[in-house]
Amino acid sequence: MTTFDDLAGSELDAAVIAADHARVLHSWSAQAHLPSFVVAGARGCRVWNHAGTSWLDFSSQLVNTNVGHQHPRVVAAIQEQAGVLTTVNPATANLTRARAAEKVLAHLPGTFEKIFFTNAGADANENAIRMARLVTGRDKVVSAYRSYHGNTGAAVVATGDWRRVPNEYARGHVHVFGPYLYRSEFWARTPQEECERALHHLERVVQSEGPDSVAAILLETVPGTAGVLTPPDGYLTGVREIADRYGILLVLDEVMAGFGRTGSWFAFDRHDVVPDLVTFAKGVNSGYVPAGGVAVTGRVAHAFDERVYPGGLTYSGHPLAMAAIVATIEAMEDERIVENAADVGARVIAPALDELARRNPLVGEVRGSGVFWAVELVEDPDTRVPLAPDRVADVRGRCLERGLLPFTSENRVHVVPPCVVTPDEAREGLAILATVLDDVAGERA
Amino acid sequence: MTTFDDLAGSELDAAVIAADHARVLHSWSAQAHLPSFVVAGARGCRVWNHAGTSWLDFSSQLVNTNVGHQHPRVVAAIQEQAGVLTTVNPATANLTRARAAEKVLAHLPGTFEKIFFTNAGADANENAIRMARLVTGRDKVVSAYRSYHGNTGAAVVATGDWRRVPNEYARGHVHVFGPYLYRSEFWARTPQEECERALHHLERVVQSEGPDSVAAILLETVPGTAGVLTPPDGYLTGVREIADRYGILLVLDEVMAGFGRTGSWFAFDRHDVVPDLVTFAKGVNSGYVPAGGVAVTGRVAHAFDERVYPGGLTYSGHPLAMAAIVATIEAMEDERIVENAADVGARVIAPALDELARRNPLVGEVRGSGVFWAVELVEDPDTRVPLAPDRVADVRGRCLERGLLPFTSENRVHVVPPCVVTPDEAREGLAILATVLDDVAGERA
Ligand SMILES: Cc1ncc(COP(=O)(O)O)c(C=O)c1O
Ligand SMILES: Cc1ncc(COP(=O)(O)O)c(C=O)c1O
Repeated sequence: MTTFDDLAGSELDAAVIAADHARVLHSWSAQAHLPSFVVAGARGCRVWNHAGTSWLDFSSQLVNTNVGHQHPRVVAAIQEQAGVLTTVNPATANLTRARAAEKVLAHLPGTFEKIFFTNAGADANENAIRMARLVTGRDKVVSAYRSYHGNTGAAVVATGDWRRVPNEYARGHVHVFGPYLYRSEFWARTPQEECERALHHLERVVQSEGPDSVAAILLETVPGTAGVLTPPDGYLTGVREIADRYGILLVLDEVMAGFGRTGSWFAFDRHDVVPDLVTFAKGVNSGYVPAGGVAVTGRVAHAFDERVYPGGLTYSGHPLAMAAIVATIEAMEDERIVENAADVGARVIAPALDELARRNPLVGEVRGSGVFWAVELVEDPDTRVPLAPDRVADVRGRCLERGLLPFTSENRVHVVPPCVVTPDEAREGLAILATVLDDVAGERA
Repeated sequence: MTTFDDLAGSELDAAVIAADHARVLHSWSAQAHLPSFVVAGARGCRVWNHAGTSWLDFSSQLVNTNVGHQHPRVVAAIQEQAGVLTTVNPATANLTRARAAEKVLAHLPGTFEKIFFTNAGADANENAIRMARLVTGRDKVVSAYRSYHGNTGAAVVATGDWRRVPNEYARGHVHVFGPYLYRSEFWARTPQEECERALHHLERVVQSEGPDSVAAILLETVPGTAGVLTPPDGYLTGVREIADRYGILLVLDEVMAGFGRTGSWFAFDRHDVVPDLVTFAKGVNSGYVPAGGVAVTGRVAHAFDERVYPGGLTYSGHPLAMAAIVATIEAMEDERIVENAADVGARVIAPALDELARRNPLVGEVRGSGVFWAVELVEDPDTRVPLAPDRVADVRGRCLERGLLPFTSENRVHVVPPCVVTPDEAREGLAILATVLDDVAGERA
């Protein structure tokens, strides 16, 4: 056994990195090229290593710590529940689980009746897909190329990005292009044109696949990892109409966009649309205990009154996870955390990023709302060629050096701090990002 | 919001059941026919409701609370870690995660090098299947009809039992019959005959599918939900030989059988076989915080040194789950919990069940080891026709009335108490089970 007890500071950091890299196989990585970054502790919007170096967290880790790190109320609720009952057979009824379901439903439209709890986002989508297939008696699922829905067998083939390709072992998954005016697939020049053409494209795919074979249209309300692609006004309303026209269920994946991220409880609240199923995870309890779920409307819920629902998992409605959900939602309500995200987004982040986009030639476009923003970096604002990977890595490295933990994905920096970020913290992080991008652009010119 | 605060005792139980059933969609159930059972708290081998009625837990919930309920050391570790760091980006290194990997690896053969952590059992199998496919460049997976591997897209089609059928949306999954002498698929009359024929059948299926297309043979070391089907001596050694002969990876699913359940750390320790990948969950931390994982040998681990491993999840190596793993394994080591399971199994459970099988005509066969037993109930010991579902429900109901929480599956009662069960507790529960079965058999005669 490695003894870490005699070590401290940067020696402990080095030992942890060595032990972790030797014995842990990491997600989505080449194992010989893992980052050497330790998180030893965290609070609010800051994380630190054992040596005491700290960073302002503009990543919310994997865009999940919406209430910030180590929120005292959520920590206390976990500690209290741990002392009472950590785990239970999901078939039994449980007070904390009943409370958690009620808390989630309270922020959804009245048509939503029940929650199926899962461990995370992937299995939330798995179960939403299964429900849609069983309720409609159809098996195809239409989702977007620019999307991520999780890494399990059905969820990952519903995924559109590169992570799908090595995992294609399921049938019945069809992908479409969504609206993304900056890199339009439809030769569009205005948001309205992009919207109309994306809807036309979606409907033509549905018609060509055979509408009677399509169980669900599964979309991230705001595709997140793909680049915070807020849909233009009218797109989701149009998708809803197409779904209704062909008897297809609409599943909105709010795993990343939900629970305050966009500045509202659910991202679809901003888009005049009500889905049939909503999947969630991450923000629902800020990831303090693994949890996710599917919220379903009455039609779906009651389809399984007399018929067995053929899905399940050992930790569905796990009491410790449920306690974290109740405390997280109560903290968000009482401390007006969603309102804070909306406010900091509108008053601080939007103007700062707009200014940066106007000034800095590396910035092709900025887009987002609340604490959910993408800064799209390009080699040249005219050709819009994405900034090369080594240059993005350079931007990332310089941010870290200056005390900012950024979230980078392909040629983008996502500005995704916790929803509790204060205006001052937001300004601090944005200033570092601006300095780094100005430096890089300057050295280049 | 429902207010539960003014309620207590059986009124609170009733309110919890009503609220839970109204708002929670439950796993593997018809929602209009859910059990009315509340667990309010638990300790060791007992669970109780709000009214204070308690039951001896012979189910370990879903066969996961191997260290018993609310083990003080594991609870304390969760509470402590909750105060330091609950969640972190899996790409960063983390002390608790490094420790957890080391703890799991310490109980595996030396060929195992790394752990990929997941949230549960399903995603452990998902990732094992993905690794096997990528390492071999083949896509078929051979698993058993009598098996359960989880509810996500790839895992559920690898599953053999009825839960697979409504979920068959993936290709490349092939199923075989495993050894099960009591209901032999091979017209066998001795364990040796059953073993040889099951191996012949497996090899013929592999040959007929085209060995070069088979990535993995995925088996529960001891199929659990399917009936605690301990394989005969030589079966798993034979499977290993077939796998080696055709360049196929052997994945053993130890989600239910691992971490003490059979009376050894891993069930395969009792079978003279070393797999290439091992999947685990449940017992690894008794389910106190959702967690699972895949342990991999060097060949698999290093296949992803330079190549990106294309799988991952937000909560891979989640610190709170990791703290529960470290504390659970330490408690199991220090308190000799695995040895206790072996001892109570051999000294108390085996003789009591054998005696019951000899005496009671409802009992067709008993089988198992450690705290992992199945009592197979039949209408008639000669025809071996499974006991009808309403009669099994009756057995279940009578056990509950007498203070025993049993685990029933199809026509079987599984005797699966926590590994910390004392000889006296085991005797108490076995006596209730015997009384109930004797009563039912007596009323019938
Ligand atoms: C939109 C979306 N859906 C699903 C998932 C999968 O969630 P998990 O990693 O918890 O399985 C993610 C994870 O990033 C996501 O962003
Ligand atoms: C052998 C086996 N594998 C996998 C699983 C799936 O585990 P989970 O429910 O945690 O996804 C189970 C669950 O009962 C199991 O018994």
